[in-house]
Amino acid sequence: MQQALDAAILGVRGANPLVGAMLVSEAGDVLSIGHHRGAGTHHAERDALERFRRDHPGGSDLSTATLYSTLEPCRHQGRQPACTELIIDAGVGRVVHGASDPSSNGGGAEVLRRAGIDVVSGVLAQQCQALNHRWVTAARQSRPFVTAHLAQTMDGRIAAEDGTSQWITSKAARDHTHQVRSRADAILVGTNTVAVDDPRLTARTPSGELSLRQPLRVVMGMTPARPGLQLTQGLPEGDGWVQLRTRDPLTALQELAQTTHGGYPVKHVLVEGGQSVLSAFFAADLVDEVFAYQAPLLLGTGRGSVGDIGVRTLSEAPRFALDPAEGGPVQIMDSDVCVHLQPKGDTCSPES
Amino acid sequence: MQQALDAAILGVRGANPLVGAMLVSEAGDVLSIGHHRGAGTHHAERDALERFRRDHPGGSDLSTATLYSTLEPCRHQGRQPACTELIIDAGVGRVVHGASDPSSNGGGAEVLRRAGIDVVSGVLAQQCQALNHRWVTAARQSRPFVTAHLAQTMDGRIAAEDGTSQWITSKAARDHTHQVRSRADAILVGTNTVAVDDPRLTARTPSGELSLRQPLRVVMGMTPARPGLQLTQGLPEGDGWVQLRTRDPLTALQELAQTTHGGYPVKHVLVEGGQSVLSAFFAADLVDEVFAYQAPLLLGTGRGSVGDIGVRTLSEAPRFALDPAEGGPVQIMDSDVCVHLQPKGDTCSPES
Repeated sequence: MQQALDAAILGVRGANPLVGAMLVSEAGDVLSIGHHRGAGTHHAERDALERFRRDHPGGSDLSTATLYSTLEPCRHQGRQPACTELIIDAGVGRVVHGASDPSSNGGGAEVLRRAGIDVVSGVLAQQCQALNHRWVTAARQSRPFVTAHLAQTMDGRIAAEDGTSQWITSKAARDHTHQVRSRADAILVGTNTVAVDDPRLTARTPSGELSLRQPLRVVMGMTPARPGLQLTQGLPEGDGWVQLRTRDPLTALQELAQTTHGGYPVKHVLVEGGQSVLSAFFAADLVDEVFAYQAPLLLGTGRGSVGDIGVRTLSEAPRFALDPAEGGPVQIMDSDVCVHLQPKGDTCSPES
Repeated sequence: MQQALDAAILGVRGANPLVGAMLVSEAGDVLSIGHHRGAGTHHAERDALERFRRDHPGGSDLSTATLYSTLEPCRHQGRQPACTELIIDAGVGRVVHGASDPSSNGGGAEVLRRAGIDVVSGVLAQQCQALNHRWVTAARQSRPFVTAHLAQTMDGRIAAEDGTSQWITSKAARDHTHQVRSRADAILVGTNTVAVDDPRLTARTPSGELSLRQPLRVVMGMTPARPGLQLTQGLPEGDGWVQLRTRDPLTALQELAQTTHGGYPVKHVLVEGGQSVLSAFFAADLVDEVFAYQAPLLLGTGRGSVGDIGVRTLSEAPRFALDPAEGGPVQIMDSDVCVHLQPKGDTCSPES
């Protein structure tokens, strides 16, 4: 199960939880290892089963094999087929899973048991649960998973005194943001950011072309979005973009959870700014993941990345933990350093 | 020479430049590689010669060997013997060096030539010079090398609104600061920091004991240091601590350059804060190296690590580069990330 956890952490956070899976023979040999790579890609169990088939083209009897998975296999068909069906069809004899699935996809263990498969639940359950503790929080609050984006100077500024802000971070850091945009269901910014920066909010490749997958563009706040904004692309509200007329982040998120984009519900939101919006999300403990891009320059004055979040003394400060997912907690991007964080709490890293 | 550069970067910045050296046989075999590890330790040339002797206990004729060094070998005896003497005594036939030594130690190449050694100067000179571009700047300005210490939250704060600040960073980060303190000649803080925090300004080991080497404790500013401060240790001014009665950082540094501590001149100062002092040093472009410790928590309000440095628009912002010295530009210290930076300019990394 530890090896499945190590595989899980290679994935990316967002709409779906991190999951790792491993097929082991009766003799204890590892037959294959799989992990989930984010919404729209194979689940970990399917990844492990397909890797096994690829490496054993003659086929093989799995009736004495065990499939380990950090999360209870899903029983519902979504963008991907139900893992319970795939496991039953593959003839796997035994399934050992860590965390139970608290979402509407839960109950897979029971489905497998009814199909005659030997199922062991709760192995390394604490670590397996900790791996996705904020994904579970988001699911319980019936809201999308929230990734926050801080792109700032060494002293935490997002704009100089005169408002200039393009570009603080390097191209490699901005390319990474576009990668995150392309896998999010929605990008959310405040009305002030829209008024000042008039961003396109599209996901683009490093060469500047539109990515295949484009997130819903969301403006949050009471000030009406003026006509002709780049993010509207000349289209009426509801057609690729929406405005959420609220200052309350939980209300905004729950509205988004009821919204579909490209045929699927919005389950992952990238909150890009500005200061007021980010502060509101942090103050409400509604940030599940942070990419903090730090550019090696100093402004001294100008707008900070985060404003008043209601903290008056150090012991009240919200604390985060280095997030080992997606290739580790720290990445160097040209001259910038990107720190990947998750809210502290019941966090887990494969080493712990 | 590239290998000597790669070795040089393993050292630490401070009173002395980064230097790497390599002994190569007539046939082109690498006999030994050495580098300098900071003030008070062997110079790179001596390190390479001693490693060679250790690995070749029977001794060996070096008259056909070449000693590569990224910097012109020194000709003056300081805390360490003159490298020129050691090279001549070892019977090295040929010396190839990169940068010339711009300090009062310069002229070693001529000394070696007069001793009959074949000397080639200026190989990869640009990279060798870039390696220590700020050390050269400090020497030209007749001032100590300055390391700045930023210990801050993810949003660049050093204290909460109510002034609480202990501890923002993790123990591992504070231990690293004590390591840097123990190799600096002086630690400098402002009068405000002294009044608010009453720090000891001693260098301590991870277990809390005093390190063998203790830096001069320096207070900078016009407000007289009140009696009974911890940093005075009950001793009169001049006995382990001094106050520099100026707000001008260059004046302060040039005064320090005229000060001796433990029998040696102050050549390396660690500027720890607070905000006003750090801002003054950054504004005057008098910071040669930065350790930016970033703790994964948010304050939103409270004192920033850096205040007004005279920058009004983004293009005026002082820019830094990731510093590959001392084990790389990024280190994880418990839950914190320490980013090691040097002022941008004629910087060099071994990869470039």
